[in-house]
Amino acid sequence: MSQPRLANRANRMRASEIRELLKLLARPDIISFAGGIPDESLFPANAAKEGYVKALDSETQGKSLQYSLSDGHAPLRQWIVEYMASLGVTCELENVMITSGSQQALDFIAKLYLSPNDTALVTWPTYLGALQAFNAYEPRFDRLDPMGNRSSAEIAKDAEDAGGSVKFAYLSADFGNPTGQTYSREMRERLIEMADELDIPIIEDGAYQALRYDGTAIPPILAIEQEQRGGDIEACRTIYCGSFSKTLAPGLRIGWVCGSRQILDRLVIIKQAGDLHTSTINQMVIDHIARTVFDEQVEKIGSVYSARRDKLLAELKKNMPDGVSWTEPEGGMFVWVTLPKGLDGAALLEKSLETEKVAFVPGQAFFADGSGANTIRLSFSCAGDEMIEEGMARLGRLIANAI
Amino acid sequence: MSQPRLANRANRMRASEIRELLKLLARPDIISFAGGIPDESLFPANAAKEGYVKALDSETQGKSLQYSLSDGHAPLRQWIVEYMASLGVTCELENVMITSGSQQALDFIAKLYLSPNDTALVTWPTYLGALQAFNAYEPRFDRLDPMGNRSSAEIAKDAEDAGGSVKFAYLSADFGNPTGQTYSREMRERLIEMADELDIPIIEDGAYQALRYDGTAIPPILAIEQEQRGGDIEACRTIYCGSFSKTLAPGLRIGWVCGSRQILDRLVIIKQAGDLHTSTINQMVIDHIARTVFDEQVEKIGSVYSARRDKLLAELKKNMPDGVSWTEPEGGMFVWVTLPKGLDGAALLEKSLETEKVAFVPGQAFFADGSGANTIRLSFSCAGDEMIEEGMARLGRLIANAI
Repeated sequence: MSQPRLANRANRMRASEIRELLKLLARPDIISFAGGIPDESLFPANAAKEGYVKALDSETQGKSLQYSLSDGHAPLRQWIVEYMASLGVTCELENVMITSGSQQALDFIAKLYLSPNDTALVTWPTYLGALQAFNAYEPRFDRLDPMGNRSSAEIAKDAEDAGGSVKFAYLSADFGNPTGQTYSREMRERLIEMADELDIPIIEDGAYQALRYDGTAIPPILAIEQEQRGGDIEACRTIYCGSFSKTLAPGLRIGWVCGSRQILDRLVIIKQAGDLHTSTINQMVIDHIARTVFDEQVEKIGSVYSARRDKLLAELKKNMPDGVSWTEPEGGMFVWVTLPKGLDGAALLEKSLETEKVAFVPGQAFFADGSGANTIRLSFSCAGDEMIEEGMARLGRLIANAI
Repeated sequence: MSQPRLANRANRMRASEIRELLKLLARPDIISFAGGIPDESLFPANAAKEGYVKALDSETQGKSLQYSLSDGHAPLRQWIVEYMASLGVTCELENVMITSGSQQALDFIAKLYLSPNDTALVTWPTYLGALQAFNAYEPRFDRLDPMGNRSSAEIAKDAEDAGGSVKFAYLSADFGNPTGQTYSREMRERLIEMADELDIPIIEDGAYQALRYDGTAIPPILAIEQEQRGGDIEACRTIYCGSFSKTLAPGLRIGWVCGSRQILDRLVIIKQAGDLHTSTINQMVIDHIARTVFDEQVEKIGSVYSARRDKLLAELKKNMPDGVSWTEPEGGMFVWVTLPKGLDGAALLEKSLETEKVAFVPGQAFFADGSGANTIRLSFSCAGDEMIEEGMARLGRLIANAI
């Protein structure tokens, strides 16, 4: 039996080493800051149970177990319309589509725009799952750096020389994976300008947006753009991708896309061809959970995660040798550590698994150009005080010995 | 704001007119045989409720609401391994991946194989959702007709002349949508031969496989091929796509793919990039439902649907004028009606919505080449006796007047 001939794109797609790493790190002798997942002890399990029981009462069980429309469960979309309004985005039901997690939104948006050799602009580093989703459509990646020196004309020229054109700019503006960094209002405004110059959509990944623990909230790029366009969402080029995975629970796989009707209508067609629709009952249950405990839940995880972040930052300060620096995120789940030049995160991890038994994610995988060898990602969402103390003492020793 | 530049594929994808039709047909004055959905009064709602409550007990709620692995929930995959064994397919856990409905499997398989201008072989007619999923990858369609006159060499030559190559053959071998037709063992064997000649995978859509009401079961193509390959699934080119949407409930969006590890490993990477994984809790609940009521449920829907099929066939016989013929399916949800040449299903429906107020799906949309104007699809899964009597009387009159 010969090997079936695959599409080119299939050869671009690789299993995430990080996920392989996470499997490895289930070892009980290892203190792990690798996994970027929510703390499952904080999930709103009672509200979820209530929601499922309600969805399965005799009145609604037929509908909740049946096929449903590709754009999503209307009451949940209505809740999202109101939630987006609270962020400064004014929209209608038709501007919102439900996806199976925001990962699916990234896949579908790439499917809508990218042809082989087109350019996707992403930050250096960026969310690894976005690189994986986009890679299926064989793009080239270029660096998204709105405050940088390269003009839009130069970026467009490079894309053309590479045999395609710039198709979109993707970023997570608030506490994104992996850096935890927030982009300033000035940077968001410059990005919109740049998108206008290039005539491309902005893909705003809002997966961590609700997880702000301090500092002043900056409106989503979509909200800033809508204000600039006289309040008209139909004139906006930003596509906002939201998720309930960090605020409520990832196991139901519910996210959403919000943008102009012109774009949403296309995405609904892609959704229909892709998986018909997201689980009907899970949409009904997320609607129930959101309506009953969303604010309370965001406050609860915020108070736990912010204390863990504070502890991690304090222990980093106490234990890291000179020459190591890190981000101080105002939210999210991650701290991004930059090691002295010449140190290699992957080599450090390998050594750590033998000696100090502390785990983290080497940063290089998050760079589309393979740079960033001297960076690592630490996740604090599942880390208790003692674990952080012991883990950072070990990590400090490990790095000090490696310098 | 100018129109963003879309990938070529986006312009190939169109909203299904059928789904638009279904929205229209929610009108209470219309007797509809259009919707191809299961009867929601037959869903195993109690087992589902039990499953959700169990998944959310204090022991398991963390896991059921958390992220999980891309290949799927191992106990459910184990159930599927045993189920596949009951169909004559011997496989291991690693040969099974969970998908968000079998529609997603079709999208992912097309993503794995199809480049623009490649050829996908499909039956004339075929499942419309497959055409929609495949269209995203810009293939050319050619007719799959293993018992026909064209040699594999001719088919390969035509594909090459069109600028690509034949990448797979897709079909639903048992009671498929839209015809309800079953392919004989001889035809399945010839198809395997043909796939060997062309060196392509066979995509076997088993969505309706369990819905056999009479006649003798024919093993899945994958089972026949495995037997031919000395029992070695790793040597098989058939990829079987299964679904719980027709047997248990579609609202949870759980399907699966079964095939060689070589192919499955690739699909797991595509799944990870596409939506990370299918809803954790829904996989656990489908596992619970399958283990507690699968056989009972298949028997229950079989007895209801087969009576409806019998009634529909009897009323067709009573009411249809000469020159009209139809399939007599041994299972599934559909009867496929061929009208006298010159009649047009779409025009007939338009007339019907004005006069007789009976609805059905014009068959043309199921043909990749736009032929089949004189065909219509009738679904009996949600049709009661009186509805069938009245509906077929009206349809008979409508057709008689149109001839």
